[in-house]
Amino acid sequence: MASLVIDNIGSLVTNDESLGRGPLGLVEDASIVITDDVVEWIGPAGAIADRRIDADGACVLPGFVDSHTHLVFAGDRSAEFVARMAGQSYDGGGIRTTTDATRAASSDDLHALVAHRLAEAHRAGTTTVEIKSGYGLNVDDEARSLSIAGRYTDETTFLGAHLLPAEFDGRPDDYIDLVCGEMLRAATPEARWVDAFCETGAFDADQCRAVLDAGREAGLGLRLHGNQLGHGPGVQLAVECGCASVDHCTYLTDDDIAALAASDTVATFLPATDFSTRQPYPDARRVIDAGATVALASNCNPGSSYTTSISFCIALAVRDMHMTIDEAVQAVTLGGAAALRRDDVGRLTPGSAGHAVVLDAPTHHHLAYRPGVPLIRQTIGPLGES
Amino acid sequence: MASLVIDNIGSLVTNDESLGRGPLGLVEDASIVITDDVVEWIGPAGAIADRRIDADGACVLPGFVDSHTHLVFAGDRSAEFVARMAGQSYDGGGIRTTTDATRAASSDDLHALVAHRLAEAHRAGTTTVEIKSGYGLNVDDEARSLSIAGRYTDETTFLGAHLLPAEFDGRPDDYIDLVCGEMLRAATPEARWVDAFCETGAFDADQCRAVLDAGREAGLGLRLHGNQLGHGPGVQLAVECGCASVDHCTYLTDDDIAALAASDTVATFLPATDFSTRQPYPDARRVIDAGATVALASNCNPGSSYTTSISFCIALAVRDMHMTIDEAVQAVTLGGAAALRRDDVGRLTPGSAGHAVVLDAPTHHHLAYRPGVPLIRQTIGPLGES
Repeated sequence: MASLVIDNIGSLVTNDESLGRGPLGLVEDASIVITDDVVEWIGPAGAIADRRIDADGACVLPGFVDSHTHLVFAGDRSAEFVARMAGQSYDGGGIRTTTDATRAASSDDLHALVAHRLAEAHRAGTTTVEIKSGYGLNVDDEARSLSIAGRYTDETTFLGAHLLPAEFDGRPDDYIDLVCGEMLRAATPEARWVDAFCETGAFDADQCRAVLDAGREAGLGLRLHGNQLGHGPGVQLAVECGCASVDHCTYLTDDDIAALAASDTVATFLPATDFSTRQPYPDARRVIDAGATVALASNCNPGSSYTTSISFCIALAVRDMHMTIDEAVQAVTLGGAAALRRDDVGRLTPGSAGHAVVLDAPTHHHLAYRPGVPLIRQTIGPLGES
Repeated sequence: MASLVIDNIGSLVTNDESLGRGPLGLVEDASIVITDDVVEWIGPAGAIADRRIDADGACVLPGFVDSHTHLVFAGDRSAEFVARMAGQSYDGGGIRTTTDATRAASSDDLHALVAHRLAEAHRAGTTTVEIKSGYGLNVDDEARSLSIAGRYTDETTFLGAHLLPAEFDGRPDDYIDLVCGEMLRAATPEARWVDAFCETGAFDADQCRAVLDAGREAGLGLRLHGNQLGHGPGVQLAVECGCASVDHCTYLTDDDIAALAASDTVATFLPATDFSTRQPYPDARRVIDAGATVALASNCNPGSSYTTSISFCIALAVRDMHMTIDEAVQAVTLGGAAALRRDDVGRLTPGSAGHAVVLDAPTHHHLAYRPGVPLIRQTIGPLGES
């Protein structure tokens, strides 16, 4: 068995309260032994293994779990971004631009694009990533997107109900029938999750419920986009259907927050989206203080959030959503894992996945204290080491 | 003569309108030849030189000019940052913590810290950097800080008037006498600029004017911190004294803006500071629309802005200060150069310094479109290539 020790860790975030101090389970002056990609041992510095990384007093955390991305796409939408920053409002209509580019791209090109983005995410500390389809929007291209995503992650999500494709203009229910029927059947072999975009301008609650019901019937886990651009039925629908996560949650009523707090549905915030669309930020404090589980994710996509940087999401969550740094770090590790119903990632404890990041900093606080700085010195995870 | 060609540039920002399109002087499908660190030639792709970098269609810009940093310090103030994010207000008092740590550090340690931070800045695209003293606050330690800064840059700034050191409590005028006398004489051999912190809690207009007058008398160029935490006399004083730049400019009256617009004093914004102190952002639009010259800089320091990322400053300037991406890119190149009274940097035109950054992106728009992502593929500048 190949074993690796990360030694001389100044501050180790385990997310296991039984191992260390506070909710992050902080251990000082630690070493961690990883054998065959699983954490075998955590204890004082000085452990021995086949191979050694010297953290030199730096902070080590669980690899980030990015539970919401749309990495399978071609083209970019920088022109739309420039226009929006100049004052034009964002209505989501640009998704069709990406659909056209994605359908037109060769599979080899799409593979290369996804691999390039994943390498970037990996350098930025992400070791578990969810990838959605949703720029194919026909049977073949949705299946192709999921097949490509499935080469890189187990956390693949069928998002046929992302937006109405142009060829179904005026016939949304016909499109939903396709999504719930032939498209779902083509997607199911590669998809672990089903998702829908419940928003004015995308799909309404009944349409999204149909998609979620069909997905559940096909054996998929459920997730939902909701409450991004205004108040709406997304959160209530997600809770009613038992979704693992409802994502965006920018506009929440007291009833929405109460429903989240009483459920197992994770509220996933995507603050880089609010940054890049100049939307208000979600009121994370109300959600956390009510007792709901929260996650932070990148929502990496070419329209509303073209970033792979989880550190950037942490900095925004702390500065603009008033989360503590500890809460933000938990939200990108344990929170992301909960949003994917995973208990093997997002923590560093004997038996968990040996996915870790070594910072160029002594504590996890620096992830917010040093905004914009690429602080990830090394990432150890399923995509290798970088 | 050693020559280098950067070839296959998809989009070259020259900042020379005579060379290309628009105020950025954009040239498509270009190559640039740099000989002995000076731009020798700009033209169509395919030029030949001793050594070749293939930009592969990417964007190339002038290296960033970071005209405001405090890189010579020891210790960090992450605990203060954590407290501030939890709701404690920032009053600048923490500077004394850094003064104690800096005085106590060995010169070797300070050198290593500055070199580490400069390497980080260089990887992030900065090729010209101003470095202030201001954490010594006695004769020997200010002189030592400037001597260390001078090893890395010509743009050294004497900031003895950063904050009143503890040993002068209640005797600010005595301290200003020291700054203007013995401390200035000790600083002058290494300093190009003199600066002062004109703010409630730091020094008043008369004290700052005394420092600027003494600095001018000693042959130094003038700059000033002002209008960071509230309205105040900083901007008017800077214009009156002919400062090259007045930095922060978060709180500006109409009269302040009119004074800036009628002067050669650059208004330097430091939005990462407003981010990390949860202050409002400056109203850059009013200043630009009035016709003043503006710069963006990092203000890298351990208390209020511990970032070296000029890309992060660009993203904030676009999102939160409503600057266009073109304006923000000019502000970190031409603007920074103007704030340092330099015309050899901040542009790529025959005869200018051969300091360039190659992006992992096709256009400069991506610097704002991809927030948090380390988009600098390669930096060519006085600190080497990385």
